[in-house]
Amino acid sequence: MSKRYSLVALAIMLFFQMGNAQEKRGRARDFGLQIGILPTGTHNAITDVPGLSVGQKTLMAGDSIRTGVTAIIPHQGNLFQEKVPAAVYVGNGFGKMMGISQIQELGNIETPILLTNTLNAPIVANGLIDYMLALPGNERVKSVNAVVGETNDGGLNDIRGRHVSADDVLAAIAAASTGPVAEGNVGAGTGTECLGFKGGIGTASRKLPASRGGYTVGVLVQTNFGGVLSINGAPVGRELHNFYMQEPKEAHKVDGSCMIVIATDAPLSARNLERLAKRSYIAFGNVGAFSSNGSGDYSIAFSTNPKNRIPHESDSIELNATSVGNDYMSPLFMAVWEATEEAILNSMFMAEDVKGIRGRTVRALPIAETLRILKKYNALEYDKLPKAVSK
Amino acid sequence: MSKRYSLVALAIMLFFQMGNAQEKRGRARDFGLQIGILPTGTHNAITDVPGLSVGQKTLMAGDSIRTGVTAIIPHQGNLFQEKVPAAVYVGNGFGKMMGISQIQELGNIETPILLTNTLNAPIVANGLIDYMLALPGNERVKSVNAVVGETNDGGLNDIRGRHVSADDVLAAIAAASTGPVAEGNVGAGTGTECLGFKGGIGTASRKLPASRGGYTVGVLVQTNFGGVLSINGAPVGRELHNFYMQEPKEAHKVDGSCMIVIATDAPLSARNLERLAKRSYIAFGNVGAFSSNGSGDYSIAFSTNPKNRIPHESDSIELNATSVGNDYMSPLFMAVWEATEEAILNSMFMAEDVKGIRGRTVRALPIAETLRILKKYNALEYDKLPKAVSK
Amino acid sequence: MSKRYSLVALAIMLFFQMGNAQEKRGRARDFGLQIGILPTGTHNAITDVPGLSVGQKTLMAGDSIRTGVTAIIPHQGNLFQEKVPAAVYVGNGFGKMMGISQIQELGNIETPILLTNTLNAPIVANGLIDYMLALPGNERVKSVNAVVGETNDGGLNDIRGRHVSADDVLAAIAAASTGPVAEGNVGAGTGTECLGFKGGIGTASRKLPASRGGYTVGVLVQTNFGGVLSINGAPVGRELHNFYMQEPKEAHKVDGSCMIVIATDAPLSARNLERLAKRSYIAFGNVGAFSSNGSGDYSIAFSTNPKNRIPHESDSIELNATSVGNDYMSPLFMAVWEATEEAILNSMFMAEDVKGIRGRTVRALPIAETLRILKKYNALEYDKLPKAVSK
Amino acid sequence: MSKRYSLVALAIMLFFQMGNAQEKRGRARDFGLQIGILPTGTHNAITDVPGLSVGQKTLMAGDSIRTGVTAIIPHQGNLFQEKVPAAVYVGNGFGKMMGISQIQELGNIETPILLTNTLNAPIVANGLIDYMLALPGNERVKSVNAVVGETNDGGLNDIRGRHVSADDVLAAIAAASTGPVAEGNVGAGTGTECLGFKGGIGTASRKLPASRGGYTVGVLVQTNFGGVLSINGAPVGRELHNFYMQEPKEAHKVDGSCMIVIATDAPLSARNLERLAKRSYIAFGNVGAFSSNGSGDYSIAFSTNPKNRIPHESDSIELNATSVGNDYMSPLFMAVWEATEEAILNSMFMAEDVKGIRGRTVRALPIAETLRILKKYNALEYDKLPKAVSK
Repeated sequence: MSKRYSLVALAIMLFFQMGNAQEKRGRARDFGLQIGILPTGTHNAITDVPGLSVGQKTLMAGDSIRTGVTAIIPHQGNLFQEKVPAAVYVGNGFGKMMGISQIQELGNIETPILLTNTLNAPIVANGLIDYMLALPGNERVKSVNAVVGETNDGGLNDIRGRHVSADDVLAAIAAASTGPVAEGNVGAGTGTECLGFKGGIGTASRKLPASRGGYTVGVLVQTNFGGVLSINGAPVGRELHNFYMQEPKEAHKVDGSCMIVIATDAPLSARNLERLAKRSYIAFGNVGAFSSNGSGDYSIAFSTNPKNRIPHESDSIELNATSVGNDYMSPLFMAVWEATEEAILNSMFMAEDVKGIRGRTVRALPIAETLRILKKYNALEYDKLPKAVSK
Repeated sequence: MSKRYSLVALAIMLFFQMGNAQEKRGRARDFGLQIGILPTGTHNAITDVPGLSVGQKTLMAGDSIRTGVTAIIPHQGNLFQEKVPAAVYVGNGFGKMMGISQIQELGNIETPILLTNTLNAPIVANGLIDYMLALPGNERVKSVNAVVGETNDGGLNDIRGRHVSADDVLAAIAAASTGPVAEGNVGAGTGTECLGFKGGIGTASRKLPASRGGYTVGVLVQTNFGGVLSINGAPVGRELHNFYMQEPKEAHKVDGSCMIVIATDAPLSARNLERLAKRSYIAFGNVGAFSSNGSGDYSIAFSTNPKNRIPHESDSIELNATSVGNDYMSPLFMAVWEATEEAILNSMFMAEDVKGIRGRTVRALPIAETLRILKKYNALEYDKLPKAVSK
Repeated sequence: MSKRYSLVALAIMLFFQMGNAQEKRGRARDFGLQIGILPTGTHNAITDVPGLSVGQKTLMAGDSIRTGVTAIIPHQGNLFQEKVPAAVYVGNGFGKMMGISQIQELGNIETPILLTNTLNAPIVANGLIDYMLALPGNERVKSVNAVVGETNDGGLNDIRGRHVSADDVLAAIAAASTGPVAEGNVGAGTGTECLGFKGGIGTASRKLPASRGGYTVGVLVQTNFGGVLSINGAPVGRELHNFYMQEPKEAHKVDGSCMIVIATDAPLSARNLERLAKRSYIAFGNVGAFSSNGSGDYSIAFSTNPKNRIPHESDSIELNATSVGNDYMSPLFMAVWEATEEAILNSMFMAEDVKGIRGRTVRALPIAETLRILKKYNALEYDKLPKAVSK
Repeated sequence: MSKRYSLVALAIMLFFQMGNAQEKRGRARDFGLQIGILPTGTHNAITDVPGLSVGQKTLMAGDSIRTGVTAIIPHQGNLFQEKVPAAVYVGNGFGKMMGISQIQELGNIETPILLTNTLNAPIVANGLIDYMLALPGNERVKSVNAVVGETNDGGLNDIRGRHVSADDVLAAIAAASTGPVAEGNVGAGTGTECLGFKGGIGTASRKLPASRGGYTVGVLVQTNFGGVLSINGAPVGRELHNFYMQEPKEAHKVDGSCMIVIATDAPLSARNLERLAKRSYIAFGNVGAFSSNGSGDYSIAFSTNPKNRIPHESDSIELNATSVGNDYMSPLFMAVWEATEEAILNSMFMAEDVKGIRGRTVRALPIAETLRILKKYNALEYDKLPKAVSK
């Protein structure tokens, strides 16, 4: 038995002793899960991409405010004046993400990416415009493409009350830091639901071997969708009798959405960033989702590589850029696929039970039971399997 | 000389007598212009599509507030509960139009279409959500795809001040009516510029002969773009020494945007509505524009035909629909092409001089001079040319 | 132990006794695999969609001809005169599929769908045009949108020799039948490779419960791509030391392609067919693929429902159509997701070892070893898990 | 009267004296037409882009073979081994252009672009593959993305006979040269029809002032579409009683297609090449077309700039590229818009009457009458108007 696995067994025992109390949460890897074949970055988080920071503001108040804001900030300069290459892939467009057409047309982003709830997206965009206009150096700016994503947390949150304010936007941005990222019921994930359990914010990263460029790919997700939960191939949703189209009674809501934010330090053109973003969509299959009709599934990818910054104004007609060639994209595709799967699982492993509007409670993924199922399907011993090339 | 043309000559004389005073404005046809070969609807306006209404709120205050809101309301019922088929075509995506991805995914719209200025788009969307949530019958609604278009009126308007409020949204909607539509410096066109002159709101329509279905196509535009103005083929921009890339000094701003709203009573699928929307892009060529880098050019088309309403909720798995077959789409394509050209011209003919922020003045198209040029190029006698089939 | 599982155990023993001899092949379900939660159609094949037939011509000659043609024929009438609604989703466009833009523009197909190898696609299209022009009733036809898909079988086949002829096209079409479909090394799958093993043609189907419309969705795939093989979540590729980016030596080719053909009797608009097609892309994740740079991944979906046939010529301006509403699409999405996964697995389970050009051999998936791995991961007992609603 | 104009007047007189004899043809500028405000390149042809060559093979035999092949060759090296950045814009996808999805995915082309008739597209693609496989250096090539465009010349040509062969492909490529390009009834334009008259091959170019980069943009078109012919704004189609939807009898066929090939030496990313391609669509409006339902309207753009060649194989993970920044794209957009309009007119001015299948004759644009109309509308004196900046 591997050392890591012994700890898992211990954890299981401890969980069972806790009875009905809320279980101690942890990230998927804390319990021995190994997703995919590539190694993670230092924090296994989107912040492993150098210079990137994440800030969040959680609104949990009274018996029905369960929402918030999550901000992903690509670099620490003035992003409007130094834009980064970016692309959007729309998996299923039943959502209200803002800023899409300009990203697709110009191939860049000029604001941080903010996530929130569906009905607050315009308010958050307005707050983001406030922030951008006020930045030193932006005094003459008269057009800002605010990038805001959302999912619908109306099952727990008083979404019609639209409780997020411009101040919450500023607070999320002000709280941004590099290093580990808070996951689960935090920021824009405070009130979301995923695959029949509590969803939230999750993150993960992958680092390619030097022979493939040594690049880092980081993913952050806001999970709020349904399906038939699968973890490392184990049919957890079915074992727990909680899945879409189940007998005898269909309590499991399949609709919802997923926002996927992808960052990399690989120098990529907007075209290859779009291709990269698209691969995150495939990761839905791995966790047991199929992008239902009501899901707003958007992936936004950007490159922070300093070689490819795009100045807002330039006297030069031509710009130089460096880009990974098409033939060397596959390892990056694999990285985003793996990191998206793990980020989704982290959002669920880290989320806790929430009681919200009209007294409704959504349970977190029951970790002890889940680990029992994973053990049954041998899904915890993947660290013994061969891995990817390491150099 | 045709009777109509005599009136034009008279008008020209009167205009010259007015000296430097602001010229009396009128629509393109009032001065004898005939655009295209198809006949117009009753009002030559988007409101010729039965049931559709337009409302506007104009903000013109102090020396720098020059903006507003224009609302296009497809039908007089609860649009959220009875959606209409719709599609968006993005000509050049350098803009902030909201609601695109859901329209493209689901093929319908569920709110009126609101137009405003760039930096107010989120505030207007938020006001539109207020309005939709408060409508009788929408008490349980927790997701609204607010459709908001914009162009940048920052050359005349204090756009950074973001003066449009939620109340202005409600006022525009409340003011909506069928019948003639106010054009020029009104609503979302209050501060816009077009082809070197004052732009604004414009509208036009076409009615197909009965043998082609007898359908009406109406177009409403918010014009704010540059190029080399051409009117019925006459090189007006060059004659007036006001065009993009001109010698000796390039005062003419080419960037800007155009919002194009297209309505029809023809029963169309979302797929054919997208094709219809795309044809409006071709009309740019006719007025002398080429969709510059900085232009946010969006066309949204919808069908109001009662046979194809889409209920928000339905117990029926299958819906019946009626749709014009592909082979019968060309006359509709021609109609939207002609009506877009004429709507753009109307926005300029109807706009008046505006003095705005920092004391800058944008002149209206000089009608007398323009008519003189049109006469030189014989562009006013098109009523003598053969027209389309009439039955 | 379930009855089915006993048979599996027996099968395993028999396989081991066969030693190095080529293993007896069977479909995934023959060995106890249960993919997903929905029931299959009668034949678990694309031909479960009523009226649809499949025909194939296999070219296996000498030591280097390993290729062929697979034809999917939507209905038994004159398809040019009675088109069916259709859509294409391009997962990764590194391929030469023909006919895409017209399908996307007009929303229908007017020829059978033919699959072959990359360099023979034009020859097959030309043969298909021969066939269509010669059909009774098509005497005046002067334009045909030939739909041809391909993957690159050049690892086993003398692809530069371009051995497929127009006669082979006619032979494949002539051989078409309803009922069970030949899988594995047949037709266009004769020389393909998948996930490190021999790929080929595979098929599967799903039938929705009556409460969800009772529709059938059938999928047929031509598999030729790489990744990290996963079967019902079991890490088969890694256990067999055959996967992309593996240590110490990367023998596993990740590039390649996948053609996915999707048929349904559900009445669907072209827009919802495109959404349906897109969901097949997610199934890649379930088998361990991520759509590598070199993969040409195309999904084409069509509806055979008689209510929505599109006449080539019609005197009627408007056509009536029936379409499943957006809100009822999710079960269909789930069906195509499951059927694609299973079709891919069937292509591998049914394929046999092939020795081809330059003496290279590609081994079939080793079934006995695979079953042993599946057992280790408990991936064969899914028939005990809860399933979808049955009514 | 300008000197140029005197020559035009003389030409008109001479034409009238020629009576019913076939008129002497010439390019639009030979008759005094000035399209747009930008200067042309040396030859006013796509070959003004350095290194690019065009070759054609015309098939005109018996009473019904009226077709051919036109080849555009981006540079004189091995294009497969040294690909160039490229993009496709699909205006209206009712056509059979081949190679689209790979161009869109990878952002480059690896073969010359060949144009032919609709039913011969696969045969021409096959011939092109022959050619590419046989090139020195391509001995191991097993995948070729053949780029072939087409329009339907079945109104004059025995298109069902499919008379173009692989030899004709090789002949067209072998005939390629830099310098002036044959226009009108030549190559793939031999049997096409445009705006009610004989269409064909046409070309034009624009050169930007040095202050805008000094780039050249060249366009070549194969014209085969309908509408309401307009030349420099003059309503020629209506004056000649030959236009779509005309009274009393509609002889004018609106369906058809247009292939537009765009080359530039400006260093452009695939993303900006797609935007460039899109602007050619707007030029339809200027000649009086609106992209009818039956039109296959495709624009393909590529950059020949040596800085951005893409090697087929490279040991380097990253590639350097240079690209015109978004903010400097508008002059290029204007250039392609103008050159497309002029190329279309050239195809008509240079085409001659053709009698084809079933004895049907399509008349060339009557030049003398057209010049009379242009004079009426003052459309020949544009050389007196202000032009673009010259430096």
